Amino acid sequence: MSRQTGIRVLRQRGGYGYTYAPGRKPIARVKPGEKVVLRTPDAFENKLRTAKDLCTRKCSFPFVNPQVGPIHVIGAEPGDTLAVTIHAIEPDRDYVVTALIPRFGGLTGTAVTAMLNEPLPEQTRILPLRDGFVEFNDMIRIPYQPFMGTIGVAPRIEAIGSLNAGVHGGNMDCVETSPGREVWFPVFVEGAHFYTGDAHAAQGDGELTGVACELAAKVTLSFQVIKGKTIGGPRIVSEECLMACGSARPLEDAARIAWCELIRWMVDDFGFDRLDAYHLLGQVGRMRLGNMVDPNYTMVAQIERKYLPPR
Amino acid sequence: MSRQTGIRVLRQRGGYGYTYAPGRKPIARVKPGEKVVLRTPDAFENKLRTAKDLCTRKCSFPFVNPQVGPIHVIGAEPGDTLAVTIHAIEPDRDYVVTALIPRFGGLTGTAVTAMLNEPLPEQTRILPLRDGFVEFNDMIRIPYQPFMGTIGVAPRIEAIGSLNAGVHGGNMDCVETSPGREVWFPVFVEGAHFYTGDAHAAQGDGELTGVACELAAKVTLSFQVIKGKTIGGPRIVSEECLMACGSARPLEDAARIAWCELIRWMVDDFGFDRLDAYHLLGQVGRMRLGNMVDPNYTMVAQIERKYLPPR
Amino acid sequence: MSRQTGIRVLRQRGGYGYTYAPGRKPIARVKPGEKVVLRTPDAFENKLRTAKDLCTRKCSFPFVNPQVGPIHVIGAEPGDTLAVTIHAIEPDRDYVVTALIPRFGGLTGTAVTAMLNEPLPEQTRILPLRDGFVEFNDMIRIPYQPFMGTIGVAPRIEAIGSLNAGVHGGNMDCVETSPGREVWFPVFVEGAHFYTGDAHAAQGDGELTGVACELAAKVTLSFQVIKGKTIGGPRIVSEECLMACGSARPLEDAARIAWCELIRWMVDDFGFDRLDAYHLLGQVGRMRLGNMVDPNYTMVAQIERKYLPPR
Amino acid sequence: MSRQTGIRVLRQRGGYGYTYAPGRKPIARVKPGEKVVLRTPDAFENKLRTAKDLCTRKCSFPFVNPQVGPIHVIGAEPGDTLAVTIHAIEPDRDYVVTALIPRFGGLTGTAVTAMLNEPLPEQTRILPLRDGFVEFNDMIRIPYQPFMGTIGVAPRIEAIGSLNAGVHGGNMDCVETSPGREVWFPVFVEGAHFYTGDAHAAQGDGELTGVACELAAKVTLSFQVIKGKTIGGPRIVSEECLMACGSARPLEDAARIAWCELIRWMVDDFGFDRLDAYHLLGQVGRMRLGNMVDPNYTMVAQIERKYLPPR
Repeated sequence: MSRQTGIRVLRQRGGYGYTYAPGRKPIARVKPGEKVVLRTPDAFENKLRTAKDLCTRKCSFPFVNPQVGPIHVIGAEPGDTLAVTIHAIEPDRDYVVTALIPRFGGLTGTAVTAMLNEPLPEQTRILPLRDGFVEFNDMIRIPYQPFMGTIGVAPRIEAIGSLNAGVHGGNMDCVETSPGREVWFPVFVEGAHFYTGDAHAAQGDGELTGVACELAAKVTLSFQVIKGKTIGGPRIVSEECLMACGSARPLEDAARIAWCELIRWMVDDFGFDRLDAYHLLGQVGRMRLGNMVDPNYTMVAQIERKYLPPR
Repeated sequence: MSRQTGIRVLRQRGGYGYTYAPGRKPIARVKPGEKVVLRTPDAFENKLRTAKDLCTRKCSFPFVNPQVGPIHVIGAEPGDTLAVTIHAIEPDRDYVVTALIPRFGGLTGTAVTAMLNEPLPEQTRILPLRDGFVEFNDMIRIPYQPFMGTIGVAPRIEAIGSLNAGVHGGNMDCVETSPGREVWFPVFVEGAHFYTGDAHAAQGDGELTGVACELAAKVTLSFQVIKGKTIGGPRIVSEECLMACGSARPLEDAARIAWCELIRWMVDDFGFDRLDAYHLLGQVGRMRLGNMVDPNYTMVAQIERKYLPPR
Repeated sequence: MSRQTGIRVLRQRGGYGYTYAPGRKPIARVKPGEKVVLRTPDAFENKLRTAKDLCTRKCSFPFVNPQVGPIHVIGAEPGDTLAVTIHAIEPDRDYVVTALIPRFGGLTGTAVTAMLNEPLPEQTRILPLRDGFVEFNDMIRIPYQPFMGTIGVAPRIEAIGSLNAGVHGGNMDCVETSPGREVWFPVFVEGAHFYTGDAHAAQGDGELTGVACELAAKVTLSFQVIKGKTIGGPRIVSEECLMACGSARPLEDAARIAWCELIRWMVDDFGFDRLDAYHLLGQVGRMRLGNMVDPNYTMVAQIERKYLPPR
Repeated sequence: MSRQTGIRVLRQRGGYGYTYAPGRKPIARVKPGEKVVLRTPDAFENKLRTAKDLCTRKCSFPFVNPQVGPIHVIGAEPGDTLAVTIHAIEPDRDYVVTALIPRFGGLTGTAVTAMLNEPLPEQTRILPLRDGFVEFNDMIRIPYQPFMGTIGVAPRIEAIGSLNAGVHGGNMDCVETSPGREVWFPVFVEGAHFYTGDAHAAQGDGELTGVACELAAKVTLSFQVIKGKTIGGPRIVSEECLMACGSARPLEDAARIAWCELIRWMVDDFGFDRLDAYHLLGQVGRMRLGNMVDPNYTMVAQIERKYLPPR
């Protein structure tokens, strides 16, 4: 722990995680409220450094999207909710990587949406990160709006690949898991066993090409445990909104999961009648597309706090 | 035509349209640039006036979502693009209607997502429209943010029900077809044969319950014809954004159509390389959920103008 | 009418139908029980005669899949069921056509599942029809097992393209609509207004390439009207099975529609408790993939008669 | 090993597997060609014995669908193919269990297709197994046509719940994995680590209610290793057919995976041109619905051997 800041720096040992899994030895045991800093490599494990470094040559599936963790949060038990505050996501280098990967992405045949067409060409792009912008090219600058592409907790018995998403969180690739937000997860195992990785400097809705502005980052987090509160999947709290995440295929099922979890929240914590909440979301609900490229797609249902009664 | 305003008032004759169809006698022939005013009934044909007026009793499927039109736009020919400017959508009464309709909506079994579960209860709600707000209840007020739920042109040979959406537009139920915007449609028949209806005073993303804040409205429009420009489906132009609409099931196919049409736009009108446009949308594209309840779902792909070179 | 056979030969006048639509002038008025013969052109309107005749050059969308009809069945009224017996489907020439059409088919990006990949190459294949077999090549012969790819009735108000399928039937492309079977349709308009076309000499489940062994055919049919019986969509009766068809996207919704309609049948006509029927189909139901290439996909739910009590 | 039969009886130790996972201690090391017998409990771990034993009370998710294994097949290495011959599936008791489980099944809202409707009622049914038939009720007998609902190998790094299916096999619930068939799996880990369970005495296509005729069984198997042959997912070989399995959502993606893998097989082992194989499957391919209820749906693409050249 650094004396100056009171922030504890955690180091990954024994290799990154490529699955969200119970039963791995934690890299640290952390108390609720304690601030920690992690260094997360990018989704390509920092192996792509020039435009000539192609993913299919440098990376070896399924050893991609490396995760830092697990972090054991003291006091978290199955049935509780883990609330993670993202304090900061700072660049750990002066560039980002983006890419086209054959048979991966939203507008191409893939391993799942299997087709006979020739794949799109593979490409790697190294984009400078300067003065708060990603420089897409000489003309176009994209504001630095970082978030964690992959964030979640260990499931109860499965080991879920870090490219996938579900009720445990994981690779949701939704831009809302950003600094200043609190992200909630159901706790399935003693200590919650939190993981994160895959920081993005910027990303469009849907992560259309399958690859965002991939960043090695320094991430500052703290954890709280909401004892005895059981939720059905990831939730996000911002100053303006409450949000619930759903991950599934097809996309409408991801949306349905997210809407139903948001309604549950409105009923449980804000006293709504279930059909009243449904009616209200029909008129004021917002839906954000997280990703439409990963094994499970992610949608985020949102309601502005101004429509909610005081708790 | 009113002398004061120079705006021509059009009247529906011979009954509303319940399909988007070629070959019907136009209610008017309009010149490019001419401002017109229409009065559109609500999606229930103004038949629900109290909470006791249930849709399944008062309305008779498929005679719902009545449309005003067709309007023949002089000079529009197949292969052109029709650009419709929405100048104003004003309330034509002091309340809106919303409802739950059995086996219709985003979180219930329907005629298409057929299930054995009992339907949700039917409900009609009459909500006051006052001082620029829809009064959802004593506590919750929803800002008046009107748009046309259904808007489009006649297809070439089909007659498509006014509850459905497609490359002709139709019942997209996306909040972006709002005053101040220009909405583009491919022209399939001589005169384009424009229809609109189903004004909404407000709506959440996805129109989750299948019914928005349904409004009888006074709608002010004008038309331009972009000669010789062929587009693949509806587009929307706002001050900040370019948008392309896709309508299909499942929802990811609606998204794919919208993204591909937006890429086509970036390539054709802004000189992008196709894969560059794809890369860029991966980082800065936005996607808005129109509806996830109608026979075809609608997604709207967006790019901010600031990322586009000057034309 | 031929004296020898007592079969009435119907001739198409005024051009083929490219939509299933109400309100067109019937090509004939037919009495229940009367046998009629139609000559249906193939889905390419018989325009592809050599391997050099490519669909994209010879045909002009949406003027494909031409339909014979409408046939007005005397006595059929909305709310009734039309039962069509397919007596025979005979080849009207000595070859079939199959093809690959760009951006059409089950294993390629399409207009709906829109993608950026290059399309597959276009191909036309003319295959001899000889001795009861389609000769795929020197080695492979495919038995002549004909059926009507497109068959159905006019919807109430829509005009639905002949490439599409729905509760009115249409382009279901399921191999079960074959000689010896009775095919039932809901009647939406006075006289039912029956159409058919798109005979196939053979086809795999799903019509994977989007094009079967396309045949010009001589089709013998007769009609019965089941007065006062209202059904939810197409049904097929064979000696062994009862079948219900569902058409939608995604494919599971097509299946759900088909299963629900079959359960309705078991309940209405065979006295099953609804959940008993559901249980039984879980153990003995069969599901046939009609097509996974058309605007709506089609699935056919089946139960063997041996599991049904005597009516 | 029994002297009489030469068949080795394997016993499960250390509890059943509820995931398909690498790294667990094998219950046995088996040589290629060696016949083994397993006793598999039913999917409810034999806990439902009367109609009053409800799944939601007797079972505790995710500890359902218990699997026997892993079996280490000597000589199997990553990149090889494991070929499993199912010699026999014999009943280990005189009844089967079927059930309706709330929010599970093909015609009800579920955890994934999340809905607000009330669930269907929960039911357990104990059905006698007698004289080669399951007695559904006094009138209806269902032939004993057993198969393994869940069968597969350990993935490389994930631990996949035994209710799910994928390229590793798992809970495909397709009736084709039956006695007399050979089932092939890609080998991801040293020794393949084979699992199986969830025997069904009978099942309809799709396993519509989510629960088949669940059976405790005695299963006789043997294994071969096809060295150096790499396949993309499960395949099934019968006397008449070659089959490839695809598991995904939506159902059309499961079908696409299956078709593409079957085409790969035809190209690699039978010398087909890729587009020729596609054409041929369009005319003679068969598709069987495995399940439309599990986390991934399963489709099985089939071609009759008579259409294949001699290898």
